[in-house]
Amino acid sequence: MIKQEFFNLEIKTKGQKLYEFTDKVSNWIKENNFKSGIINLSIQHTSASLIIQENADPDVQTDLINYFDKLVPMNNKLYIHTTEGKDDMPAHIKSALTNNQISLSVKNNELLLGTWQGLYLFEHRIEKQSRLIVFHYLGD
Amino acid sequence: MIKQEFFNLEIKTKGQKLYEFTDKVSNWIKENNFKSGIINLSIQHTSASLIIQENADPDVQTDLINYFDKLVPMNNKLYIHTTEGKDDMPAHIKSALTNNQISLSVKNNELLLGTWQGLYLFEHRIEKQSRLIVFHYLGD
Amino acid sequence: MIKQEFFNLEIKTKGQKLYEFTDKVSNWIKENNFKSGIINLSIQHTSASLIIQENADPDVQTDLINYFDKLVPMNNKLYIHTTEGKDDMPAHIKSALTNNQISLSVKNNELLLGTWQGLYLFEHRIEKQSRLIVFHYLGD
Repeated sequence: MIKQEFFNLEIKTKGQKLYEFTDKVSNWIKENNFKSGIINLSIQHTSASLIIQENADPDVQTDLINYFDKLVPMNNKLYIHTTEGKDDMPAHIKSALTNNQISLSVKNNELLLGTWQGLYLFEHRIEKQSRLIVFHYLGD
Repeated sequence: MIKQEFFNLEIKTKGQKLYEFTDKVSNWIKENNFKSGIINLSIQHTSASLIIQENADPDVQTDLINYFDKLVPMNNKLYIHTTEGKDDMPAHIKSALTNNQISLSVKNNELLLGTWQGLYLFEHRIEKQSRLIVFHYLGD
Repeated sequence: MIKQEFFNLEIKTKGQKLYEFTDKVSNWIKENNFKSGIINLSIQHTSASLIIQENADPDVQTDLINYFDKLVPMNNKLYIHTTEGKDDMPAHIKSALTNNQISLSVKNNELLLGTWQGLYLFEHRIEKQSRLIVFHYLGD
């Protein structure tokens, strides 16, 4: 028998940062007693993204944010889509350069992530946002 | 019982643009009466990619194309792989910067995409191409 | 009945290069007689990545490496995370720009990749490393 479960995680963001939610996924696995399977995570927006990054030194996150800001500048004369704010088009581009979706493996009730890997919502907008990430488990 | 279905979508492209195919996936779900499961989409090429982007303002697509063209210029003296045309190596790089594969969740016969999310083939070559995207459903 | 198998592939790397492992996946499918399903590949590190790229002209790989090195330079004054070496922060950024995870489709005991597509570990560190990629099959 195939087992499937869904969960909607809402994260309220306050500006361009990485918001970790590794524990939300690990706890969901424990609570539901998932054995082995795939968890498909999908963010339902195109101006924020999902990434797996180092969870040890927080400087890595600062450098990532600064790098992406330099790579995809605001107020760039290249953009014609400017009606939603100077940070909106850069946010769509950063989303395209990273991921909207990640599939994770679960084995014997454990999430298979490396020791130094964490799951993050990467917010690209500067104002407050409410973000929805869908968790979908398929396995046994 | 696990249910699996496959479908090959061919998209004929005419230059660097985003080609939406959200309806192709939604209709496939309806026609096959898929309940809940995962759809794995994989493009069988490395000079075009798959992305989820905003489907509201078409200017977003124009800006994306222009941004990527500036980020990964043609005629760059950096490239040694030039035999397949000045747009080929940039196309491979743009493909590496975006995605070859996306997994989507289906719940109760509905594709779980955000309101403003659309599925696109992102063509990076300038001449006419025929592109193959494999749809693979696994669920119940 | 749902079938699941796991395999840990270790790749010893020696510097910034693409290391192909397509055969490792194809052979694993044959040996285990997998019919149809999804293989989720996940690299358990954040300073190396997984990519699908052209397997025909090796110049493509050289150009990719050179392009990414130029896009994400070492010794950039932008970085504050410098304790693990000048190549570490660029490695994390390159990882964010590419993929930690790829899901592949298997149909009738065959891996569904395009003719010119190969699977690669993209190493971003300059010193020797030992990298772990988890293979996870779910199907029938």
